[in-house]
Amino acid sequence: MSFEETIINISSAARDASRKIAACTAEQKNSTLIRIAEKLRAEADFIKSENAKDLAKGKEAGLTSAMLDRLAITDKTIDSMAEGLMFVARLEDPVGMIVKGYQRPNGLEVSKVRIPLGVIGIIYESRPNVTIDAAGLCLKAGNAVVLRGGSEAINSNRALAGIIGKSLEEEGLPTEVIQVVPVTDREAVTFLLQQEEYIDVIIPRGGEGLIRFVTQNSRIPVLKHYKGVCHTYVDSAADLEMAGDICFNAKVQRPGVCNAMETMLVHKDVAGEFLPVMAKKLVDAGVELRGCDATCNLVGSAKPAQDEDWDTEYVDLILSVKVVDDLDGAIGHIMQYGSKHSDAIVSKDHGNIKKFVREVDSSGVFVNSSTRFNDGGELGLGAEIGISTSKLHAFGPMGLEELTAVKFVVYGDGQIRE
Amino acid sequence: MSFEETIINISSAARDASRKIAACTAEQKNSTLIRIAEKLRAEADFIKSENAKDLAKGKEAGLTSAMLDRLAITDKTIDSMAEGLMFVARLEDPVGMIVKGYQRPNGLEVSKVRIPLGVIGIIYESRPNVTIDAAGLCLKAGNAVVLRGGSEAINSNRALAGIIGKSLEEEGLPTEVIQVVPVTDREAVTFLLQQEEYIDVIIPRGGEGLIRFVTQNSRIPVLKHYKGVCHTYVDSAADLEMAGDICFNAKVQRPGVCNAMETMLVHKDVAGEFLPVMAKKLVDAGVELRGCDATCNLVGSAKPAQDEDWDTEYVDLILSVKVVDDLDGAIGHIMQYGSKHSDAIVSKDHGNIKKFVREVDSSGVFVNSSTRFNDGGELGLGAEIGISTSKLHAFGPMGLEELTAVKFVVYGDGQIRE
Repeated sequence: MSFEETIINISSAARDASRKIAACTAEQKNSTLIRIAEKLRAEADFIKSENAKDLAKGKEAGLTSAMLDRLAITDKTIDSMAEGLMFVARLEDPVGMIVKGYQRPNGLEVSKVRIPLGVIGIIYESRPNVTIDAAGLCLKAGNAVVLRGGSEAINSNRALAGIIGKSLEEEGLPTEVIQVVPVTDREAVTFLLQQEEYIDVIIPRGGEGLIRFVTQNSRIPVLKHYKGVCHTYVDSAADLEMAGDICFNAKVQRPGVCNAMETMLVHKDVAGEFLPVMAKKLVDAGVELRGCDATCNLVGSAKPAQDEDWDTEYVDLILSVKVVDDLDGAIGHIMQYGSKHSDAIVSKDHGNIKKFVREVDSSGVFVNSSTRFNDGGELGLGAEIGISTSKLHAFGPMGLEELTAVKFVVYGDGQIRE
Repeated sequence: MSFEETIINISSAARDASRKIAACTAEQKNSTLIRIAEKLRAEADFIKSENAKDLAKGKEAGLTSAMLDRLAITDKTIDSMAEGLMFVARLEDPVGMIVKGYQRPNGLEVSKVRIPLGVIGIIYESRPNVTIDAAGLCLKAGNAVVLRGGSEAINSNRALAGIIGKSLEEEGLPTEVIQVVPVTDREAVTFLLQQEEYIDVIIPRGGEGLIRFVTQNSRIPVLKHYKGVCHTYVDSAADLEMAGDICFNAKVQRPGVCNAMETMLVHKDVAGEFLPVMAKKLVDAGVELRGCDATCNLVGSAKPAQDEDWDTEYVDLILSVKVVDDLDGAIGHIMQYGSKHSDAIVSKDHGNIKKFVREVDSSGVFVNSSTRFNDGGELGLGAEIGISTSKLHAFGPMGLEELTAVKFVVYGDGQIRE
């Protein structure tokens, strides 16, 4: 079979299966999630042995240790995948929720009701746990899902797909509800991205390169999660101790994630007091500082920042620092270099806070708190499938609700239009 | 200047202007809308004389009378554009609305706040009133807009753009908030559709061909309004008199619109009683009937339907009719041939209604009422910019709220992540 045929078969089968899963009760979906979790634990040895094949091939192909690390499935990975599924099983089913309801003057009763999106395509790179995490969330929201992982994880993903398939079968559900695409070359992905007749939305999970490739080649709408170049602005009216704690947390607590701070903006009136102390604390924690001229004058350990520093997502213990003249300078910098992900202000001034909140159009705007809170779990969404940095459909952390759509249901007793 | 330069200039200026209009108060936006409305009436003669140039060129080029009709601006058109703007000025401003708010266990106060989408591109065909209607709605929702109308309406659109520009200027707003693209060839549209850096969403308004072209060539997300192949299912448990009134209204009251019924599905148990009477009523109103075999046996005036009839949007006094075995037959037909626009059931049976509502995933599902109600005004959204038939972001009538996004605003007092 050609890869085109394979992909059309998978996609059209997903469309058919999406109708079945859309009509499932919460109980059926939850019991499927629990069954997959149990099988993951029971089949841990098999999963690890298949994963070992990928790791061996990866080593041979010269993958970096960070890449091999992302690829590896350990007992802890299996445990966390299983726990994740159990957690999703406990979340409220979004399908059928009535979002809004009202009566019209002519007596029509209008309600807006949550329904599944239909078929979701997930395109991701080396982490095989995405196979389970994404499948669980999509299933709970009543969607069919087509998963296309990286070629380097193909044995691991096939093993996980086998476990999912067996679980669906034992629950009496079509196995086509969750499918793994067995072909992984770029032409096959490009072809998958043309199946707008069968797939309703694509969610890419991975680095900037992958997301750019998907956006540029897809005829299907893409919910994208670009980079997180997150800022914290320390206002002249900030509580500087609070500012120090928040900035330290935003940079150091977990530097390798998208909601970590990459640039600190400091009002010139407090830079002299704030920056030397803060810089010492950061440098002691292993952070490399790259500053504007004013910063370098105040902080001996800072290297001069280059132009490209201001829009770089380091995802590492590196921080760019800029002294700004005022609030407008901070907002202007965020508008120019930010990525609409997560940006914070530390201030006691109500007017400044209000202006920052109104003018910064990032998915998460934080006042006197750490950008690290821009996360589905932390904001109370339950689990998340990613953080959207484009405004359409979902902006910010995407939970179960963001994997659904809303239709109008209108009840009448004979109304016709005049 | 090359068309590429023109389009990049327009798009990037729109991005800059979008920040200004996003920060405007409702008062400023409303007074701009009212000013445009007043100028439209004051400049009626100029608008009509520019429109006459388009009409003359159109006649020369051999446009059909229906096309010329859509292109013509009369005093009535001007009045309706001005009234439309006044109506939008009276609608509540969606920007800044708090959609949801809650406190997290750590004391963070989370709110979800409506913000403008940013820059909206509208691509449309001959109707020049779209220039005003779309501009008004986008402006009220705090967005900048790039309007690209058809070449056949270029003089009319330039005249309207001039009036809009003067109004913006007099209100002290940048004229780049609302711009008309002066180049209308296909390459220019294709190039516009690549400006994902500057334009956040594209809304095409026009026939199936235009929408297909835009979807296939856009790197910018598209909110699309495909065809409306709308069904009414007359159940075995229907009040047949009510069913007759609803079907007649859905087909005949205004056949040229997307929420008019194109296919009537009738349960076999009531077909013998319902169809002959209903057919007579429809034929008397000038409707041509195209039926399945069972329909043709019951209704002498019906022609046999061809395969392509079931997925045709006639937008005319033509109706396809099919007798189905049961509710599943009706739902299956809608799933196979429908366009997810508007579908109705007429029934007194609670179980059948519930199943129909749950399984039909159209943007509007109507119970004992006419599909003609799937309309922003009728469903209480105020004005509408179109009816989305894809599930992402908006599904069904799109009003002001659907021209916005939602961001998270999080207020803390020093919270950091553990």
